[in-house]
Amino acid sequence: MATIKDVAREAGVSVATVSRVINQSPKAGKSSIEAVTKAMKKLGYRPNATARALVSQSSNTVGVLVGDVSDPFFGTMVKAVDNVARQNGKHILIGHGYHNAQDERQALELLINNRCDALVVHAKGLSDEELCSYAQEVKGLVLINRHIEQIADRCISLDNFKGAYLATEFLIRHGHRHIACISSNHDIEDADARIQGYRAALLAHDIHLPETYIARGTPDSEGGEAAMTELLTKSVTMTGLVTYNDNMAAGVISVAQENGIPVPDKLSIVGFDDGLIARYLSPRLTTIRYPIEMMAEHAATLALQLAKDAPQPAGATMRFTPTVVRRDSVTRVG
Amino acid sequence: MATIKDVAREAGVSVATVSRVINQSPKAGKSSIEAVTKAMKKLGYRPNATARALVSQSSNTVGVLVGDVSDPFFGTMVKAVDNVARQNGKHILIGHGYHNAQDERQALELLINNRCDALVVHAKGLSDEELCSYAQEVKGLVLINRHIEQIADRCISLDNFKGAYLATEFLIRHGHRHIACISSNHDIEDADARIQGYRAALLAHDIHLPETYIARGTPDSEGGEAAMTELLTKSVTMTGLVTYNDNMAAGVISVAQENGIPVPDKLSIVGFDDGLIARYLSPRLTTIRYPIEMMAEHAATLALQLAKDAPQPAGATMRFTPTVVRRDSVTRVG
Repeated sequence: MATIKDVAREAGVSVATVSRVINQSPKAGKSSIEAVTKAMKKLGYRPNATARALVSQSSNTVGVLVGDVSDPFFGTMVKAVDNVARQNGKHILIGHGYHNAQDERQALELLINNRCDALVVHAKGLSDEELCSYAQEVKGLVLINRHIEQIADRCISLDNFKGAYLATEFLIRHGHRHIACISSNHDIEDADARIQGYRAALLAHDIHLPETYIARGTPDSEGGEAAMTELLTKSVTMTGLVTYNDNMAAGVISVAQENGIPVPDKLSIVGFDDGLIARYLSPRLTTIRYPIEMMAEHAATLALQLAKDAPQPAGATMRFTPTVVRRDSVTRVG
Repeated sequence: MATIKDVAREAGVSVATVSRVINQSPKAGKSSIEAVTKAMKKLGYRPNATARALVSQSSNTVGVLVGDVSDPFFGTMVKAVDNVARQNGKHILIGHGYHNAQDERQALELLINNRCDALVVHAKGLSDEELCSYAQEVKGLVLINRHIEQIADRCISLDNFKGAYLATEFLIRHGHRHIACISSNHDIEDADARIQGYRAALLAHDIHLPETYIARGTPDSEGGEAAMTELLTKSVTMTGLVTYNDNMAAGVISVAQENGIPVPDKLSIVGFDDGLIARYLSPRLTTIRYPIEMMAEHAATLALQLAKDAPQPAGATMRFTPTVVRRDSVTRVG
């Protein structure tokens, strides 16, 4: 492989001149640019991104930490960050954290060691303390879907409590009082906040239900199937159901149909996320909109600004609010 | 930020010793390892991944080029590559090519400039010539979902022709003769190969249909809706339909239902991919299985082996075959 010295020799200039041309320095003269470009082409020389990153202590990449990119929720998030990165002439490096501390730590260390300019981090396993310490180390680090008071100005989050409250209240307003809840078995704050929102809405309407009305599963369609099967097996009497996300709702609908329970005639369901699948389930799913695209764009923009010490506009939204998307999976009872 | 020199001073050893410890050289003594580790921790020193990449001319990352990671198909592909990378102690760097030559070239250049050990490339816009030239430059480059004769030993592909042939023949075997085809409007070989497969199956059964039986749209649910609307508007008489992928089939089913055409009673549909959505559509979608997970694992393993000049096992599968997954969206006619 040709080196920068070979290019300098071929072009008849100094290594410093080649470096200036590669780094698009305003000091590079027109004739140098021509000679160096020609020599680079002839020798098949590639400016070494790692070498340039070493000099500038920046890799020109935006790091993104997600739970699992095969989940469309994270796919949408990554694409939104990529859009912002591209608009700023940067590319992205993705790490998988799989919602556990060890994987998150390892992926984050890799991103930091690769000198990412900016980091958009979706971490659920790491403690507040550890994330604060990373935030202190990397000025362009922004958390998404998490709120930590000490670094609130770098946290883009969603009001998960309110989302679940809205979902449950929507069913109550349609006459439902026997409302079950299918949650995620991942030990993360989102699951806790949504269960609290569910409970608060019931309480506000003086509805008291036993713990058997809450079932948990993996936050995917298989988990929804398993949790729904558990509710049916335990003879839980219900006319309404809120789920942790749309994929779990898909599993619930599938099991309901197999068991002769028509949706929404015998069972009304509200999902969460408003992902692609919500519009194509049958019935089309009434759900809670998670504005992940808008939040991810916001997080990426903030991370890039923080990375270059740009001033922050005052009053930017840091905590987003979910909204109800009304479709066909809820009907009135009573 | 602390430098390697600061660490050496703190630990009371030479810079070369610190370097040996960081790079886990067998020459590093136990007492050096302890002293250096302690000093690194005290000073908050991070071994610089870019610096190490520069020395070794390898970044310890596997590069992946995809069309668009927000498409669950690519999400599944990326996750499979990530699994193989992690098993080999590596992480992944993702580039988006959006199925056009310029974006693919830019993303690929970035991955190569970042000295990726191995590259799994899903490229549809770049020419055979340009991809061959990249393959010559990077020994660990493997193409996925593309077949180029000159570098056939580095191409993991699917028999798209056969997939569409199987889908069409499945409908013919169920008595259908008026079979429409909804394809992708991306100008890529997959679309061509699948239309050829559709035509070949019709021809083999002596079925002749006008060109109006083929409609195109973006390869997502919206594109499926648009193409289905086009077929209905043009009064195309059909009892069966093959689609480019499951997402397009979701859009087709949605438009069919809105127009009072029950699926499968009045219209039988076969999708392609067997993605998550196929199992949760109503009716559950009969489709063609695209073994992208298996193919991506295979491609990543091959890329890593090629990157380190490991010998290849003879007779490994390079061209994968799609299969029919029978569910509820096809019924018998005639």
